[in-house]
Amino acid sequence: MPNSNLQAKEIRFASCPQGEPSQENFTLTTVDLPELQPGEVLVRNSFFSIDPYMRGRMNEGKSYILPFALGKALDGAAVGQVVQSRDSGFPPSAWVLSFCGWRDYFVSQASQLRKIDATQAPPSAYLGVLGATGLTAWVGLNDVARIKEKETVFISAAAGAVGSVACQLAKLYGCQVIASAGSAAKVAFLKNQLHVDYAYNYRESEPLRQLEIAAPDGLHVYFDNTAGPQLEAALGVMRNHGRIVMCGAIAGYNAPSPGPKNLHQVIIRRLRLQGLLVADHLHRMPAFLDEMIPLLRAGKVLHQETVVDGIEKAPDAFISLLQSGDAHIGKLVIHV
Amino acid sequence: MPNSNLQAKEIRFASCPQGEPSQENFTLTTVDLPELQPGEVLVRNSFFSIDPYMRGRMNEGKSYILPFALGKALDGAAVGQVVQSRDSGFPPSAWVLSFCGWRDYFVSQASQLRKIDATQAPPSAYLGVLGATGLTAWVGLNDVARIKEKETVFISAAAGAVGSVACQLAKLYGCQVIASAGSAAKVAFLKNQLHVDYAYNYRESEPLRQLEIAAPDGLHVYFDNTAGPQLEAALGVMRNHGRIVMCGAIAGYNAPSPGPKNLHQVIIRRLRLQGLLVADHLHRMPAFLDEMIPLLRAGKVLHQETVVDGIEKAPDAFISLLQSGDAHIGKLVIHV
Repeated sequence: MPNSNLQAKEIRFASCPQGEPSQENFTLTTVDLPELQPGEVLVRNSFFSIDPYMRGRMNEGKSYILPFALGKALDGAAVGQVVQSRDSGFPPSAWVLSFCGWRDYFVSQASQLRKIDATQAPPSAYLGVLGATGLTAWVGLNDVARIKEKETVFISAAAGAVGSVACQLAKLYGCQVIASAGSAAKVAFLKNQLHVDYAYNYRESEPLRQLEIAAPDGLHVYFDNTAGPQLEAALGVMRNHGRIVMCGAIAGYNAPSPGPKNLHQVIIRRLRLQGLLVADHLHRMPAFLDEMIPLLRAGKVLHQETVVDGIEKAPDAFISLLQSGDAHIGKLVIHV
Repeated sequence: MPNSNLQAKEIRFASCPQGEPSQENFTLTTVDLPELQPGEVLVRNSFFSIDPYMRGRMNEGKSYILPFALGKALDGAAVGQVVQSRDSGFPPSAWVLSFCGWRDYFVSQASQLRKIDATQAPPSAYLGVLGATGLTAWVGLNDVARIKEKETVFISAAAGAVGSVACQLAKLYGCQVIASAGSAAKVAFLKNQLHVDYAYNYRESEPLRQLEIAAPDGLHVYFDNTAGPQLEAALGVMRNHGRIVMCGAIAGYNAPSPGPKNLHQVIIRRLRLQGLLVADHLHRMPAFLDEMIPLLRAGKVLHQETVVDGIEKAPDAFISLLQSGDAHIGKLVIHV
C-alpha cells in the first residue's frame, strides 16, 4: 500500500556504459513509498557516497559485488535521519547509515541500518574518514601491508577518498609518505594540508623517475589505488619483501589497461601483492573507529570532502570522478 | 702455488646473451688448481645442477642474486666427493654439496660445503627432490601458499624440477592437482607417473579453457613457474582469497613478456600473490628433509631427473632447458 504522504526521487541504472559512463546511463525517477510495516522506518538521506568502485558494478557479467540491476535504483552508502518509525530502537531524528544511496527518501527494515553518533563528527564523515573509505585506508595499512614506523610508503590517487586518509594515517604512524595525484591543486593539497613528504602530479612527470628521486632506498609499501603505469613504476622501486596493497585500479575502470611489463619483480624482490575489498573487513570497524574518532576530534586527521548539492547532480559527479579531474579532493558526497 | 698433480675443467661465462643464450656465451677452459691450504679440500664433482633461474644471472645490470661474472666460471649447486683433504671433518670420499657447479674439480674451504648422506638417497637427489629444487616446492606450498587438504591447485611447468615435486607433494597433501607442461611426453609423465588429477599441454590448448574444465569451482592456489599466458589464465579462474606462489617466470626469461591484462582480478577476488626465492628459506631445509627423506625412501615421492653426460654438454643442455622442449623431465643435472 503506498504511503500517500510521500514520494521519493531515485536515480536508476538505465544502461551499461561502454567505456566512460554518460548521462544516458542514468534516469532520475519519482516513486511512491510504501506504508511503513512494523520494524520499518522512513529515512530522509542527507548525504550519499559516490565512489570509483561503482563503475565496476555497471559492467555486464560477473562482478565482485552484485552488479547494479538495470532499471532499478543505484545504491551505495548514505547517511540520513529517521522521519517516521515503526521500530522503537530508531526514533525520528536518529541518524543512520544505510546502503540506500542515490535517492532522497527510502523505507527500510530498521535492522538493515546502523545508527551513527552525529555528536562525534559531522554525519557525512561516516561516509568518508569514519566510513568504509577510512576503514579501507586503515585496514590496507594495518592489516594488509602491516606497516611499520619509519617505512617508506607510496600512495597513488592520494588526494582521493581512500588515499587522503591513507596519507594521514601513514604520517601519524611515523612513515615517510610519497603521494601522487592528477592535478596541481591536488598536489598542493597533499603537500600543504596532508603534509606528505613528497608529492607529484603523475600526469606531468614520469612516475618511475619521481619515485627514484623520492625513495632512493626503495619502497617498503605501495598502496595502489590506480594500477596502470603507477603500479609498473612502483614495481621498479620496491624493496625486497615489500608489500603492495591492491586497493583500486581506477586507471582501468573505464577501459582495461595492460598489465605491468615488470611483474617478474614480484619474484626477484619477493613482494607480496594482496587485493583488498573493504567488505571483507567490516568486523574491524569498531577497532577502526576507536582509533579514528579521537584522531578526528583532536584535529590530527582532516576530514576532507567535496560536497555536490542536489541528487540530480550525482551522475555528472560520478562521471567526473572517474575522469580524475581537478573537481574533487577527498571524499565525494552528494548533499541531498 | 699450483697443485702440480691436477688441472680442472670449468665452463666460463664468455658474454651476455641477447634473448636466447647460445654456445658463444660459454667457454670451456682448463685451469691449474692450487695446493691445498689448511682447512681446504679438493672435490671431484659428480653432478651439477642446471636451472632456469640461471638465465637471470646472465643479464647485464642488477639481478636478484649476484650475476655471473664475465670471464669467470659459472656456478651453481653441485654434489661430489672429497679427493684430498686438509680438514679432518671432510675426509676423502665424503659426499658434499657445494655451489661450485659447472666444473669437474675444485678447491674450497671445507666450511663452505655441506655434507650429504649418500646412504639415504642417490647423491644427485640432493640437487633435486632433496635439494633447493625440492625445498622450493615444499616452501611454496607450505609456507607461501599455506595449502590445505582438498584444495584445488594448479601447477605450471609441472614436469620441471620444481613443478614435479610440487605436484607430488600437493597430491600427498590431499589436494586436487591440475598440471600443465609443454609436450605430450611431459603430460603423459604427469598423468601416469605423478598421478595428477588433470594435465594438459599448454602449447596445444587454450589455458583458460583447460582450467575452466579442470576446476569448475576455481583454484585455491596457483603455483606459477611460468608467468605469461598461464598466469593470465589462472587469474581468470582463481577463487576469492586464492593464493598465487610467484616462483618462476620462464615464459619471460629470454625476453620480457607483457603483464597479465586481468591483474585487477587480484582486487576483485582478493588474491595474495607472493614472490618466492628459495634463498630466503634455507633455514627450512632441516624440516623439509625430515619430511622428504622418508617420503623418498618409502617410494611415495619419485626423484625424477634427466642426466646429461659430460661437462662439455652443459651449455647445450641449459639452452634447451629454456626452450622447454621435450628433452627434460624433472630435474636436469650434468653428470661430470
